[in-house]
Parts: sequence; structure tokens; C-alpha cells
Amino acid sequence: MSHPELDSLRKNVDELNLEILRLINERATVVQEIGKVKEKQGVNRYDPLRERHMLNLIKENNAGPMPQSTADHIFKEIFKTALELQENDHRKALLV
Amino acid sequence: MSHPELDSLRKNVDELNLEILRLINERATVVQEIGKVKEKQGVNRYDPLRERHMLNLIKENNAGPMPQSTADHIFKEIFKTALELQENDHRKALLV
Repeated sequence: MSHPELDSLRKNVDELNLEILRLINERATVVQEIGKVKEKQGVNRYDPLRERHMLNLIKENNAGPMPQSTADHIFKEIFKTALELQENDHRKALLV
Repeated sequence: MSHPELDSLRKNVDELNLEILRLINERATVVQEIGKVKEKQGVNRYDPLRERHMLNLIKENNAGPMPQSTADHIFKEIFKTALELQENDHRKALLV
């Protein structure tokens, strides 16, 4: 059974998925850069105040419909990924 | 202690966070639309094949540095949110 209206909305969702994917990867790349700068400057990689600042900014800008509890949860996952990538870079740096 | 290079990279991360937030909310709105169309057409809301299709497309387009396992995990959270919003709409529709 064909649903032209559904197909069009689904195409829109697919495009949004790929754009979100691209931005999360871009974000991870910038966080890797931050890791390198911190490494050079001898600053701690994990910074809970910075994480709090980011979550506050996200909360202030969350226009919905996603509830804030879900936004917090998704972004904490995104933060965790980026931190893990930084830690991998750090381990690699120690090995060379 | 001031770190102009860090500050500039962090500003970039903040901008990317807000753009990701905006797109996840836009995606949720489109999925709510899909829920309404399905409701009218009497189609099931949850469609595991559609979820598989979306994850495959994301996998094919994941240029990194985020590992695929993490991308799967983050997107499953994003899918879950959107489905919950659809279900809320459905419950509200039953109440009127």
C-alpha cells in the first residue's frame, strides 16, 4: 500500500537523521581538537562545570517538543562519546 | 587562566549543540506529523522495518569519528523520544 504523504514525511526524517549525524561527528572532531589543546596546556580533560554550562545553554534553548529530561539524556550520551574519543587520542599519544 | 584557543573551540561546540538540539526537535515534530497521518490511515505507529532502514542509512553515511555502535545508541534514544511523543498525542486524541 502506497502512502505518498507518509513517504514524503519519512524522506524528511531521513534527511534530518543524516544532518544530525553529520553535526554530531563534527562536534566530536572539535572536541578532539579541544583534547589536543588541553593536552598541550596540561589542563584536565573532564570538566564538570563546562558540562553543566552546556546543559544549561541547551535547556534555555530547548523550544520543544522534546522534553528537557530527554534532551539532557541524549546530550549526556553525545558528551560521553566525545570524551571517549578524547581518551583514545590520549592513550594513542602515550604510546608514541 | 585564559585560553583563547579553547574558548573559541568551546564556542564552536556550543553552537553545534544548539543546532543539534534544533534538528532533533524538528525531527520530533515531523514524527508527530507521521503519527497523525498513520492515525488517520489506521497504520501501526511502531514499525521495526522502518527503524532498521533508518539505522542502515545512518551506518552507510557515518563518516566518523563517532563509532557506529555509539551512533546506533544515540539514534535509538532519538527514535524512542519521538515514539513517546507520538504515543502522548495518541492518548490525548483518545481523550477528546
